[in-house]
Order: sequence, then C-alpha cells, then structure tokens
Amino acid sequence: MNNNAFRNLSYGVYIISTWDGERPTGCTANSAMQITSSPATIAISINHDNYTNQCIEKSGRFAISILAEDSDPSIIGTFGFQTGKDVNKFDSVAYEVRGEMPVVKEGCAYVTCEVINKMETDTHTVFLGKVVDADVLSAGVPMTYAYYHKVVKGKSPKNAPTYIAEEPKEETKEEAKSIKYVCSVCGYVYDGDIPFEELPDDYKCPICKKPKAVFVKKEV
Amino acid sequence: MNNNAFRNLSYGVYIISTWDGERPTGCTANSAMQITSSPATIAISINHDNYTNQCIEKSGRFAISILAEDSDPSIIGTFGFQTGKDVNKFDSVAYEVRGEMPVVKEGCAYVTCEVINKMETDTHTVFLGKVVDADVLSAGVPMTYAYYHKVVKGKSPKNAPTYIAEEPKEETKEEAKSIKYVCSVCGYVYDGDIPFEELPDDYKCPICKKPKAVFVKKEV
Repeated sequence: MNNNAFRNLSYGVYIISTWDGERPTGCTANSAMQITSSPATIAISINHDNYTNQCIEKSGRFAISILAEDSDPSIIGTFGFQTGKDVNKFDSVAYEVRGEMPVVKEGCAYVTCEVINKMETDTHTVFLGKVVDADVLSAGVPMTYAYYHKVVKGKSPKNAPTYIAEEPKEETKEEAKSIKYVCSVCGYVYDGDIPFEELPDDYKCPICKKPKAVFVKKEV
Repeated sequence: MNNNAFRNLSYGVYIISTWDGERPTGCTANSAMQITSSPATIAISINHDNYTNQCIEKSGRFAISILAEDSDPSIIGTFGFQTGKDVNKFDSVAYEVRGEMPVVKEGCAYVTCEVINKMETDTHTVFLGKVVDADVLSAGVPMTYAYYHKVVKGKSPKNAPTYIAEEPKEETKEEAKSIKYVCSVCGYVYDGDIPFEELPDDYKCPICKKPKAVFVKKEV
C-alpha cells in the first residue's frame, strides 16, 4: 500500500465555523463535499480533538467559508494551528453573520448548514448538513488544497484527515540538500528572495503568524 | 439562497468501480474525501439510481480511480452517461485488478476500500470505506472538477450531487449569442477550430462517444 496515492484526491480549502455559545469559532478544513442536490446537503469531516467538533455538536449548525487563491493565507494558519478553546480566532479575521452563522469575509463563497445526520469514525465525525443559506461573496478562484501546498507552500496539521506523518522529500537535483528555514509551528517553508537571516526582526510566518524566532534551519 | 455558491467547492474526477458478480462495473464521481488518516478511511457519495450503488452494497467493496488531466476524457463519458446495468463499461476502458478490485489503467492513482459504514440520504448513499490497497500509477496531475468543466468543457449528469438544473450562462461580449453544437447526451459543447458542419461523418463526442448526429445547434 502506498499512502501517497491519497495525495491525488482533490480538495478545496475551507474554514468550518460555528457558535461556541455567543462566540464564533472554527477551524481550517479541506474536506467538504456536496452529497445531494435537492434538497441540498453537504458533508464535512471534523476531528474529535478539534474544539469546533463539540461546538457543532452543541449548536447543531455549521458554516463553510470557501477560501480563494487571493484570500490572505494567514487565515488558514489562524484557524488551523491553534485551538478555539483558548483563542477567539475571529478576533483577527473579519467575519459577518450570514444565515445566522459567522462567515469569513475574505472567502469567495459560503454555505451555512443545519446538522441532520452524522457518522462516527475512530477519530473524526462526518457531519451531514442540510443547506440553510449560501451565497457567492467574490469572483475569486476557489483555492484548491493542491494550490495551498504548491503555491502557498502550506502543510497539514496533525488533525487533518489527509495528514501523512512522514512527508516524502520531493528533491530535484538543484534543490537537493539546500538549507531552508521552516516554521516549527505550522511547517511553512520560507522561500523568499531575501535571505532569511536578513528579514526584519518583526517578520512573522505568513501562515500561522508566529514570530521569526520559531523558524528552524533545516536541510530540505 | 444562491446555489451557485456550491460551485466553489473543489473536487476531483474519479471512477468509482466495484464488482457486479464476476463483471467489473462503475460510475463517474466527483465526491470522494479522506475521513481519517490512521487507519485510513475514505467516504464517497453515490446516487441510489446508479447501478454501482447496489453493486457496492452487494460486494461490500469499491475502488476509486483518480483521473489525471491527461487521462482520455471519453472515460468520464463512458462511466458517467450510461448505466452499468445494460453496458459493460469496462469493455472499452483498460483496467487491471489491484487489491482485488478493477482499477482504471489511465488513472494517476487508485485506492481500494472495504465498506465499513454508510449514511443514507434521500437520494445518495455515503459509503465509508477502510482503505485496503492504494498506489500511484503515473506522475500525472490529478484532474480537478473545475478543470473538467473549464478545459474539457464537460457537464454534470443529473445523478451527480453537484448537479444544478439551470446552469447559468457565462456570457462574455464576444461569446454572446454565438451558435454552438452541443451533445444532446452529455452536454459537451463542441469548440474545435474546424466548423462543426465540416467534421467527418464518423466524428464522435469526445466525452460520451455518441455519434455526430446527436449534436444539436444551440445559442450559447
């Protein structure tokens, strides 16, 4: 069995949000798919360890904000690499309430759902949601997971269904054994024109917004 | 509610296959997503009216062949616009048996699964499969559903979860009111350099392989 085959499945990049009481919360996800067209239903998969999971369970509702290629990639890190239990992720990400749900303003579209069924697995809950509201917010091109990995150079957190523990090195002759600076929090690999050492002290990881100090030197 | 928002969800293009007794059968699908990473499970959504649904139900197994951008688009039509009840779809599409399942040779990767759970909706079954075998078959770029629509100019059959009855016209000034030839079986819009009338009599739709005669003149 070659787990790399799973990498060929195509996904988008979404923020799954809901209410934690009066407070909005959410997490980054790549797994959302339409299940039926009439009435429209959509399934999402959320790790049991994600705080969002229990909040969806309690509120019975969720929203899917669809990120675009031109959405600020730091949104992915804000929602993907910290827990909504401790942090109000929406403090730093603009949102509006649509269909009574918090929706990321920078997304190109959103869908809000009411949970009508679910399927449990060892680590994730598949929530089936009946669509309550949906709209297009901009003409942006939806970001695919492949685009996130190739262009934004993002990584998957450990709770993602698509996480593979040992990511294979994709070496070319030119890149072999080159030294890169990697964010120790989210795995982002710095690839800018300015040498990493010369970046200003207030440089922050574009994905998870952690400071320059969390970057580590690695042979990639 | 604006149903067009759903079009911003990203998908791949897959052939979901299984055994109909001794015979391989399958259908085209865009909805497949990894649910857990350890043990690896993948969910697919199949319309009740698809013959493949009852065959998966009986055999308890399915395979996902992931199509690539350079896969022959006629495979999509062969599996998407006719029923496996009447036709042996694999008669015209090369396959090999991997992980005891029929897998499309032209795919860039495959995953075979054993059904371990399912969730019913009014029109579709969401099958949860535990991965039995998986491999990468070629270095091809996985075809996204967006690529299929924009580049291959394919349409969705009525059984697809993502089917929207009235597809909005995407008109630009240049294209407005132009006459096009459209395949009445699968919806493929002919867009070649040779005027449609001058195509040879044995021209076949590149998606569903139906003859030139099924094309109809339309204002698009």
